[in-house]
Amino acid sequence: MGYSIEDLRELKNFYADQLLNDTVPFWFPRSFDKEYGGYLLMRDTDGALIDDDKAVWIQGRATWLLSTLYNTVEKKQQWLEGAKLGYDFLNKYCFDDDCQMFFHVTRDGKPIRKRRYFFSETFYVIAAAAYAKASGDEEAASNARRVFGECIAYATGEKNLAPKFTGTRKAKGIGVPMIMMNTAQQLRENIGDERCDEYITKWINEIETFFVKDDIRCVMEQVAPDGSIIDHIDGRTLNPGHAIEGAWFILHEAMHRNNDKHLIELGCKMLDYMWERGWDKEHGGILYFRDVYNKPVQEY
Amino acid sequence: MGYSIEDLRELKNFYADQLLNDTVPFWFPRSFDKEYGGYLLMRDTDGALIDDDKAVWIQGRATWLLSTLYNTVEKKQQWLEGAKLGYDFLNKYCFDDDCQMFFHVTRDGKPIRKRRYFFSETFYVIAAAAYAKASGDEEAASNARRVFGECIAYATGEKNLAPKFTGTRKAKGIGVPMIMMNTAQQLRENIGDERCDEYITKWINEIETFFVKDDIRCVMEQVAPDGSIIDHIDGRTLNPGHAIEGAWFILHEAMHRNNDKHLIELGCKMLDYMWERGWDKEHGGILYFRDVYNKPVQEY
Repeated sequence: MGYSIEDLRELKNFYADQLLNDTVPFWFPRSFDKEYGGYLLMRDTDGALIDDDKAVWIQGRATWLLSTLYNTVEKKQQWLEGAKLGYDFLNKYCFDDDCQMFFHVTRDGKPIRKRRYFFSETFYVIAAAAYAKASGDEEAASNARRVFGECIAYATGEKNLAPKFTGTRKAKGIGVPMIMMNTAQQLRENIGDERCDEYITKWINEIETFFVKDDIRCVMEQVAPDGSIIDHIDGRTLNPGHAIEGAWFILHEAMHRNNDKHLIELGCKMLDYMWERGWDKEHGGILYFRDVYNKPVQEY
Repeated sequence: MGYSIEDLRELKNFYADQLLNDTVPFWFPRSFDKEYGGYLLMRDTDGALIDDDKAVWIQGRATWLLSTLYNTVEKKQQWLEGAKLGYDFLNKYCFDDDCQMFFHVTRDGKPIRKRRYFFSETFYVIAAAAYAKASGDEEAASNARRVFGECIAYATGEKNLAPKFTGTRKAKGIGVPMIMMNTAQQLRENIGDERCDEYITKWINEIETFFVKDDIRCVMEQVAPDGSIIDHIDGRTLNPGHAIEGAWFILHEAMHRNNDKHLIELGCKMLDYMWERGWDKEHGGILYFRDVYNKPVQEY
């Protein structure tokens, strides 16, 4: 099976149309919170607001989206102004006194919940980096770099967050190397940073060495420190959509490296493995969770 | 609609048959862990073990079940010996040094996870109380009473666990008064305890005053400290099956109090309200979650 240039052009136009004429106009400008800053994003299918709280991840991701639309699609003032709303809200309300970020805040920025991992921080980095490029704001660039340094310290274990589990059964997840790879890519693409290339290589190696299992055609969601499969429910649980996201970041890196053959192969096989495992042949769509040995999953 | 005595006798026989000739023999004796104690309960529909970890809640609940079968159905030695396996495992492996209990341990009792609430403790109390009655073990009775005291200290706020949320939007859940009511009922029924009656009355009052909303025919899962509905996704999310469980404990109390008319009304209306909201008219079964104002739920 293959696509012709014509097929690919059609697909590109289809997705561009969906994004720019359907998805983005659904969310913006109506979600801009002119009163408190940030975005009001918890909406029903008809657009009605079902909650005015603000989830920090998505405040960061939406800031990144608007900045990236401005940087790559069109210099639309609405997008840049919208990006500033999110970037300012993140800075003003989403950091705790200990420099860790919150997970969930009220509309007016009062903290509701803080979590024991650092994904709010990674989405801040991509937001600040893309916004720095869009606005030319030097402070945003330096904030992106500084918080990226914090993320590296968490990812390498130099800095520790309170653990959710005891040390009895050590495990590592694909989430950290995968999101850190993407965070570094966004940082590099938007404002450049010397640390990125080396870390991206390291995180891709980690995914390839420990999480991608060619013998069983699978990308694990978590593994033991030595890469072996932890034969318990949590250890066996796969998240096909998440692994496919990882494949996407690796294919993005392949492009950056002049269509690097090895990375294309790696990304494509990750996609193939998890498409096979994740696609619901009966009803269509990607299943949230599968067990690596096809046992029942605990989720749902 | 009503049931005749004959209908009720048939239903009683049906459920007794299901319990004693289907459910219980599926789980026991095969789940007894003769090597490490406790139970191996994570099983597929064909009985195959899918994980040998032990979840502390269900170790306690199974100990309670086996003890209660022994106390109320038949003096079957297998049930009493099985109950001892669970009770001993709980004592030996499921308490941390700070007296809090773990949430999840390995087959041989090494701790995997501890949580910031005290439901492991409540299920320990019902396990120890029922086992004390079955075995005549005085130490089990005193353990049940001691840990019940700990639970009261957590429930009243005299002792605090690490919070999962900031204090920005204070909320209270129905889970604590509901499970504490049942814990006290089991303690009272099995070994007696002077504190129970007063606390049960207090917890029922709390449920009735703060969680049961006659004007909208609903039992809330959580409310603000003054009982008002918190108009955010978490605050609006109902758990019909959980509320129906609460109704069951209240109806159980009504029986204990000589068919107390007010408690029968309270329990029945809770059941009616949440049956209406929870029953899936299209596919049958009880929906896990509903929004109090019929907005979309975040779960699933």
